[in-house]
Order: sequence, then structure tokens, then C-alpha cells
Amino acid sequence: MQSFPPSFRRLVHELTRLPSIGEKSATRLAYFILRQEDGFGEKLAGAIQHACTTIGLCKTCFFLSESEQCQFCSDPGRDPQLICVVEKPMDIIAFERMGEFRGLYHVLHGLWAPLRGQGPESMKLRELLHRTKGGEVEEVIIATSSTVEGDATALYVAAQLSEQGVPSSRLAQGMPKGGELEYSDEVTLSRALSGRSRIHSS
Amino acid sequence: MQSFPPSFRRLVHELTRLPSIGEKSATRLAYFILRQEDGFGEKLAGAIQHACTTIGLCKTCFFLSESEQCQFCSDPGRDPQLICVVEKPMDIIAFERMGEFRGLYHVLHGLWAPLRGQGPESMKLRELLHRTKGGEVEEVIIATSSTVEGDATALYVAAQLSEQGVPSSRLAQGMPKGGELEYSDEVTLSRALSGRSRIHSS
Repeated sequence: MQSFPPSFRRLVHELTRLPSIGEKSATRLAYFILRQEDGFGEKLAGAIQHACTTIGLCKTCFFLSESEQCQFCSDPGRDPQLICVVEKPMDIIAFERMGEFRGLYHVLHGLWAPLRGQGPESMKLRELLHRTKGGEVEEVIIATSSTVEGDATALYVAAQLSEQGVPSSRLAQGMPKGGELEYSDEVTLSRALSGRSRIHSS
Repeated sequence: MQSFPPSFRRLVHELTRLPSIGEKSATRLAYFILRQEDGFGEKLAGAIQHACTTIGLCKTCFFLSESEQCQFCSDPGRDPQLICVVEKPMDIIAFERMGEFRGLYHVLHGLWAPLRGQGPESMKLRELLHRTKGGEVEEVIIATSSTVEGDATALYVAAQLSEQGVPSSRLAQGMPKGGELEYSDEVTLSRALSGRSRIHSS
């Protein structure tokens, strides 16, 4: 890094704080930003600044929002008795892309990951329990990822909800669409087997 | 992308314009930036803004500089009769890390790459020829990469310098330090063979 001008080094330093961006990538990115001629750097800086000042979290479900309540929580056409719990805002977009879910959401913004030092307090769980304690919610669908941490979080959240008497469910696990048996891992296959359904229900 | 707040979508859009950042990566980066709690986004935006306004190119060699002349061109201890030509500013850092070169530099900011529609005018070649036409430069070391485009550029630049009667040289090509013969490609091996040197000069 020696020999680059100070403001270039500062930019590289800030860029290395982004996930999976090392010093080489950061240097290339910084050079790219400076080489653009259409005011790209100013636009990028403006977009970051603007996003940081205008975007907050919805007071109810913690999805990204520019107002107190997000577009889902303020939509009267949504069913407030059904809550889908996800890890991060991007997961909601996947759900919306599917287009079949009409309930509300709750973003945990984290998982229960003891190995990474993240306990239950690192996620928005207390806020979920606050939403469900009124007794109006009929089902909480826990849609965390099918990973070790996602599974552990789902079990933990389900146990907490159970204490309130709120029923919870988990997304089905099995073969993904287009998945080939030959290349399936053992856990996926085992779960697909134990969750099998009858073809003829006669 | 549907359903994210507008200022989040704008940030994602700007981030996708960075090299090798697709929409998924940009969304993750945007979420990461917003999730940091120590004013990270503001610092990053400030660093980009500051770099864009303060960093320009050295009027002589076109290295990144905050003043008219870069640290190398304004260093009286450097030999102005020797110029090392590189593609991008990062290449100068590699040279400086080696620590054996005491001449000046010239950054082309591009290569002659006809397949990508970049002709000789896309690099700072005219500016190099302007530097060398006085007849004071004794040697130009053309240190472009050992790629097809790097080699083509070197030949092209050398031909232009030759018309001015300025001698030019190219970095040696051969086995890299630690390179194993078994895994060497044909071109590297062929160049290492033709450029072999005697062990005993008796």
C-alpha cells in the first residue's frame, strides 16, 4: 500500500471492511471508482449516504423501510394472524417472488449461532414474542435457512412460541425442484425420505 | 428487487455498476452497509467522495496524485533518463515493493486491446511520446503484463519509441520463482528456454 496517495489509501481501507473484499479487491475497486468519468463515485457516495439516512427498520416486523411501518405491515390486505419469520430482509423478497404468501413477516436480523458467539439476544426474538403474546396470531411459519444454525434457531424460536401457546411450523425439507438424486447429499435425501407423501391417497 | 424501499434499490443499482458485483452481491453489500452501527456507511461515502475530489493524475506520469506532480516525479533522487511504462497504478506499487528501481514511471491507464475495441488512443501513449521526444530519456522499460494484450501493447509502444530513436526494453519472461516445471505451460517454458542464460561463463 505504500506510495498511494492518502485519500486513496483511506478509500481502500474503508472498502476492505466490506465482506469478502480483501486489500487487492479493494484497491481494484478504488481504482475503478476513480477511473469512471460520469460522476460515478459521487453517485455511489450519494446513494450510500441517502440510504443510510432514509432507511430504517419497520417498527413492527423489522423489514427495511423508509417509514415507521413497512409496506407489508401497513397493507390492510395482509393476514395479521399469520407471521412468517425470516433471518434477513432478502428472504422476504424470495417469499414475495413466489407470490403465494399473504400473511405478515418478521425479520430476525440474525440467527442463534453459539459457535460465532451470537446468542438469542442477537436476533429480534423478544420483539417477535411481543407481537405474538396477544394471542391473535394463529400460526408462525419459521422460514430460517436449512442450515445447522437455521435449524437450531427454528427449534429455539418454536420452543419460545410454544410457551405462549402459539403454534409454529417449519418449511418442508426435501428434494429441490430439478434436484438430481445422484448428486443429493445424505441429509437432504434422508429428510426427503422421512417427509415423503403418498402419490395415491386411496 | 420488488418490495425493497426505493433508496435501497438505488444503492443496489449503484453497487451493481462495480466490476464483478451482480445483483445478489450488491444486495448483500447494501444490507451489510446498512446493518453496521458505527457510522460505517457515512465513512465509506465520505471516503469515496473525498477520493473523487482530491485524487487526480500526475501531469507527467499519470500516477494517482493529490497534487500536480506525484511523489515520484517530484523526487529529485529519481533518474529521469529511465522510464518504466506500466498499465495501471497498482503495477507501480509492485515495482516499488521490489525496491530496486530508481527511475520514473509512466502509467498507460489501458492497453491496446482491439478485441475489446480499445485502440492506441485509449492509453496515455501520446503523453509518453511527448516525454521521450526531447532525447533525454536513455531507456524505456515496457513493463506491461505477459498477456496477449500486454505483449501487443509492448510491441506497439516499442515501435513508436523506435521512430523517435528511443531504446526500449521488455521485462524478462521465464519461470517464476518457485515455479515447478511439471506445471509450467508451454508458452512460459518456451520463453524460459529461448531466454536461457549460461551458468558458467567460461
